Amino acid sequence: MSDERKVQEVLARYVRATDARDGKAQGTLFTDDAVVQIRIKTGQGVYEPFGEPLVGGAAVQYAVENFMEPHPAGGSSHHTTSDHIIEVDGDCAHLNAQFVVFRVRARLRPESGTGWPADAFGAQGTVEPIESGYYDTKLRRIDGEWKITRHDVLMDMPMAIPGA
Amino acid sequence: MSDERKVQEVLARYVRATDARDGKAQGTLFTDDAVVQIRIKTGQGVYEPFGEPLVGGAAVQYAVENFMEPHPAGGSSHHTTSDHIIEVDGDCAHLNAQFVVFRVRARLRPESGTGWPADAFGAQGTVEPIESGYYDTKLRRIDGEWKITRHDVLMDMPMAIPGA
Amino acid sequence: MSDERKVQEVLARYVRATDARDGKAQGTLFTDDAVVQIRIKTGQGVYEPFGEPLVGGAAVQYAVENFMEPHPAGGSSHHTTSDHIIEVDGDCAHLNAQFVVFRVRARLRPESGTGWPADAFGAQGTVEPIESGYYDTKLRRIDGEWKITRHDVLMDMPMAIPGA
Repeated sequence: MSDERKVQEVLARYVRATDARDGKAQGTLFTDDAVVQIRIKTGQGVYEPFGEPLVGGAAVQYAVENFMEPHPAGGSSHHTTSDHIIEVDGDCAHLNAQFVVFRVRARLRPESGTGWPADAFGAQGTVEPIESGYYDTKLRRIDGEWKITRHDVLMDMPMAIPGA
Repeated sequence: MSDERKVQEVLARYVRATDARDGKAQGTLFTDDAVVQIRIKTGQGVYEPFGEPLVGGAAVQYAVENFMEPHPAGGSSHHTTSDHIIEVDGDCAHLNAQFVVFRVRARLRPESGTGWPADAFGAQGTVEPIESGYYDTKLRRIDGEWKITRHDVLMDMPMAIPGA
Repeated sequence: MSDERKVQEVLARYVRATDARDGKAQGTLFTDDAVVQIRIKTGQGVYEPFGEPLVGGAAVQYAVENFMEPHPAGGSSHHTTSDHIIEVDGDCAHLNAQFVVFRVRARLRPESGTGWPADAFGAQGTVEPIESGYYDTKLRRIDGEWKITRHDVLMDMPMAIPGA
């Protein structure tokens, strides 16, 4: 498998771990000194840091386990990435990708009565894009495996902390 | 072309055939004994089979031609896939991908009068995500061509059969 | 890097240039005699030209700079592509990809008072799919770089010119 594909698959595992809220799987994708920073777009091509950076895979694991909103019953999400630009230089790599996050909410099948309403057809529930931006990510090959050393989440929209 | 890309392009042809409701093109992507099973998510990482499996490319063709809802006038769809994880082992391959399905409904241009309303701007109609999940797919190389032998459609949301 | 990936990355740079309204970056992706044509779907697999073709990178640059709607404050867009089919034959390549365009509108943080409302949570604003279709693109390798020689934008939905 080409290095570019290996690098891209790290991101593919990242989005699956995020969507599964699997902190352990997420943390192992990062080095111990990896720096993860959320940034919010404030103008065309301009971003400002949002909060403090996370440092290291263990901190990433902790954040996924404690700060990410759990899915409710019937809930799923898909962090999708596209249009990757990947540069590999020896044991270093740089990845830039677009992301769009979809929030999925399944409609619960009526427990009683005759099941779905007569006018229900196809998939029941909603799939809604709620976040977007770019991932800008640096990786290093360590013992043959690509690990994330730097991960900037460039968000198009601000994040609310209620009342803050 | 790398085997991983060849495998990924099988899925690229699959989504085009689905969106074109082209049963013949769809069927030829599968082996004669391929097993296709829709599964519905019932919990985090848990899925239950939905209906009976389809077996073989001819059955896939029949299903596309007879069971898929035709597009109405102005209608299109896009089954989009992303974040592929592909493992190739000799003549066998395993592919996992996210999917999001968009339903497209073009607004019809007014047949009479002065055309589009004065406040209409840009693309006219709606593009709406309606389904999501994962494709989990096994393939085998036969006479140099990758064919699907197993295809699980892991749906995030339940499918309604009216009144059932 | 494989030729297929190089070709795909031309499209990745195309969508970034479009979303950044960066006419110069966009124009350099095309040859001087490249032909760009928007086409509108009028039936299953049938498209009609929309307007005159653009010819050459300089015309593409001019069009991006003068005819694309600028992003308002808080506005972004993502032209996302997926399910690429790429054929490389010597110094010629053919690329076909799905596209979905998302319009992003950030909610502006209240300038006065106590910040976000108490019930605000997560990303603030909207991410909305507004266009979709296929890019069908031919490229040629010139002095080692892949350039677009032909670019058809196959739109699922009609484009409104007010009153036209």
